[in-house]
Amino acid sequence: MARIVMKFGGTSMAGIERIRSVAARVKREVDAGNQVAVVVSAMAGETDRLVNFCREASTLYDPYEYDVVVASGEQVTSGLLAMTLQAVGVPARSWLGWQLPIQTSAAHAKARIRTIDTEALDKALATGQVAVIPGFQGVDDDERVSTLGRGGSDTSAVAVAAAMKADRCDIYTDVDGVYTTDPRIVPRARKLQQVTYEEMLELASVGAKVLQTRSVGLAMKENVRIQVLSSFDDRPGTMIVGDAEIGDNNMESQLITGIAHDKNEAKITLTAVPDRPGAVASIFAPLAEANINVDMIVQNVAHSTGSTDVTFTVPATDLARSLDVLGQAKETIGFVEILHDTKISKITVVGVGMRSHAGVASTMFKALAERGINILAITTSEIKVSVVIEEDYTELAVRVLHTAYGLDAEEESAA
Amino acid sequence: MARIVMKFGGTSMAGIERIRSVAARVKREVDAGNQVAVVVSAMAGETDRLVNFCREASTLYDPYEYDVVVASGEQVTSGLLAMTLQAVGVPARSWLGWQLPIQTSAAHAKARIRTIDTEALDKALATGQVAVIPGFQGVDDDERVSTLGRGGSDTSAVAVAAAMKADRCDIYTDVDGVYTTDPRIVPRARKLQQVTYEEMLELASVGAKVLQTRSVGLAMKENVRIQVLSSFDDRPGTMIVGDAEIGDNNMESQLITGIAHDKNEAKITLTAVPDRPGAVASIFAPLAEANINVDMIVQNVAHSTGSTDVTFTVPATDLARSLDVLGQAKETIGFVEILHDTKISKITVVGVGMRSHAGVASTMFKALAERGINILAITTSEIKVSVVIEEDYTELAVRVLHTAYGLDAEEESAA
Repeated sequence: MARIVMKFGGTSMAGIERIRSVAARVKREVDAGNQVAVVVSAMAGETDRLVNFCREASTLYDPYEYDVVVASGEQVTSGLLAMTLQAVGVPARSWLGWQLPIQTSAAHAKARIRTIDTEALDKALATGQVAVIPGFQGVDDDERVSTLGRGGSDTSAVAVAAAMKADRCDIYTDVDGVYTTDPRIVPRARKLQQVTYEEMLELASVGAKVLQTRSVGLAMKENVRIQVLSSFDDRPGTMIVGDAEIGDNNMESQLITGIAHDKNEAKITLTAVPDRPGAVASIFAPLAEANINVDMIVQNVAHSTGSTDVTFTVPATDLARSLDVLGQAKETIGFVEILHDTKISKITVVGVGMRSHAGVASTMFKALAERGINILAITTSEIKVSVVIEEDYTELAVRVLHTAYGLDAEEESAA
Repeated sequence: MARIVMKFGGTSMAGIERIRSVAARVKREVDAGNQVAVVVSAMAGETDRLVNFCREASTLYDPYEYDVVVASGEQVTSGLLAMTLQAVGVPARSWLGWQLPIQTSAAHAKARIRTIDTEALDKALATGQVAVIPGFQGVDDDERVSTLGRGGSDTSAVAVAAAMKADRCDIYTDVDGVYTTDPRIVPRARKLQQVTYEEMLELASVGAKVLQTRSVGLAMKENVRIQVLSSFDDRPGTMIVGDAEIGDNNMESQLITGIAHDKNEAKITLTAVPDRPGAVASIFAPLAEANINVDMIVQNVAHSTGSTDVTFTVPATDLARSLDVLGQAKETIGFVEILHDTKISKITVVGVGMRSHAGVASTMFKALAERGINILAITTSEIKVSVVIEEDYTELAVRVLHTAYGLDAEEESAA
């Protein structure tokens, strides 16, 4: 007997026919003797519909009331799945965020889970009942409904799995696992049997939209084993686990695990920033205050004039705000010109194997150079190398690198 | 300064534009110095959508989970109205059923309100905040979401008004008041300035679908003054009040207040029931057990054979079940034949004035006879006379009686 958390996304919950097929999957785990809690998203499209109502109601809507409105989507699917499970003979009930409770911070619309009381859950599961829990929602200290921000249901699932000490957290979605790269770009991309939390974090944060980044971070911290798999077929998915579980002689063990790309960044260059201590700080302090997430930072060699160009990337949606903030700080920073470019793309090569191997970066630069792809900026970390290139070269760069690192499957993948 | 409960139905809440106009109405009351609580329905069509999901999910759905699903409709409109009020500068927050709490019985999907804790409400209102409360929902003793049954939002509004000791409960709907009869049948029907609770109960229960019957009963018990008015114009509506408020020399005071009709009943006749004590009880006991609401009962004079025919009406939706229950009890009851007819209509003439005036019934019979309308059954009470006629004569009978009792307006009403 195992304890399993199963999480189903919006596509899997879109309509009663699909909810019935979710119930069948849950029943299979119950029939196998497992204790099961299910975390559900709202029906596909429903959260958008509710968010649009809020935006229409007020451009500066109250996040407390926003949470009351948008939390209803998961409430509906929880009730529907519980009754559908009962209809196929599986005892089940829904537990809303405030009923357990799932206690969160008071940062409405982007709350963080603090604690989950599992007393009621443990009792229910011990009697063979399936607990259906709406993802994305909780309740703050004042007993007001809170939500975790878009994609928060993955985080809910991992948090429930951690609190329940579940053996596994199965995240059912509309893709059947994590691939070496986007199969729409590289048809010979391979599905990975397993990746580490850290690799998944890098892959997820640069655009492989399989799992919400926050949920992977939480899983790593709480050591929750995640499986990503499809709700539309029966093949095993990709396990996301700690380093320790990936043995050295694992057949899959190799330098590079996957390649991600992200077209949603913008590049900003400040020219002729005075080359003195504190100059860089004066750039990033106001951006941090404005809650703008700066990613890659490149400082060019100092000009002979005693000044330097500083280049960095921000999310494209934050570009206008960034230019505004920097414009206001122009005197403090002391730059001459502000340049920006949204027609860029970030390509990231990820692999835990990188830690013990040299040459990853040089393979990358060589492969890109051979195709005439210009590198505009570079950053590295222990398990990744990222480069910024012109957006038009995105797909070509991904294909070239996929082949260069030997990731191509023997024959075309079914994806 | 007055304390007012304002209630808005589904048509008034259907979409953000309409919610904005609701907010404007609420603001007007606040600006006039009143303390205001608002009770809202789900957007028109939303509850049907949610109920259909439940039916699709399971024909024998769990009423506990049904409540979780359908309560979400009012949750959404509560949050949206609160943020829309804030957008026009009116401090507001939503209070869900479990937050106040509105404590109900455990009869899920048809729960009854037991108590409403007004501590939080009183505090909020005292600071000038408008409280927005979802209608239709509450929470049972086990902290599970409950709902009051269709149309329950009117009941919620009256219950909140009673608990808050409100001076008035304004029910905004898509008609602008209570009419002497259905204006679609009689264009010269007049809007009533006021009716008594009892008259309203009779008018509502026989098909004038302005207010849910239950809410009128509660208002009468708790002495809550109700005003029914339109959310789409600014004319005063109809006040529903106790007898004491309607003075004898009221200009409107007259014999008959209104005429209602109901096509949703079916007539059942059992022939040759033995004319002995207990025979009638043996008919109605099994119907009562099956929760079938029997309305009019007519027992014809005993045949010379020592047997009698018994005729009664039931809601047309319960006809099949009634025939089934009676068929099973055939031996116990001892009838010979069971006849039924759904092509009937019930016409009811209502008026508190009836108590002190004779001749109401005879005017009715004479007026109907003159037009050749056959009366199939009759019942009376202190404030009404009801007759069953053939369905095809419904509109004719309503028009004839409206004129016979002098209810026609001087000129055509704007309705």
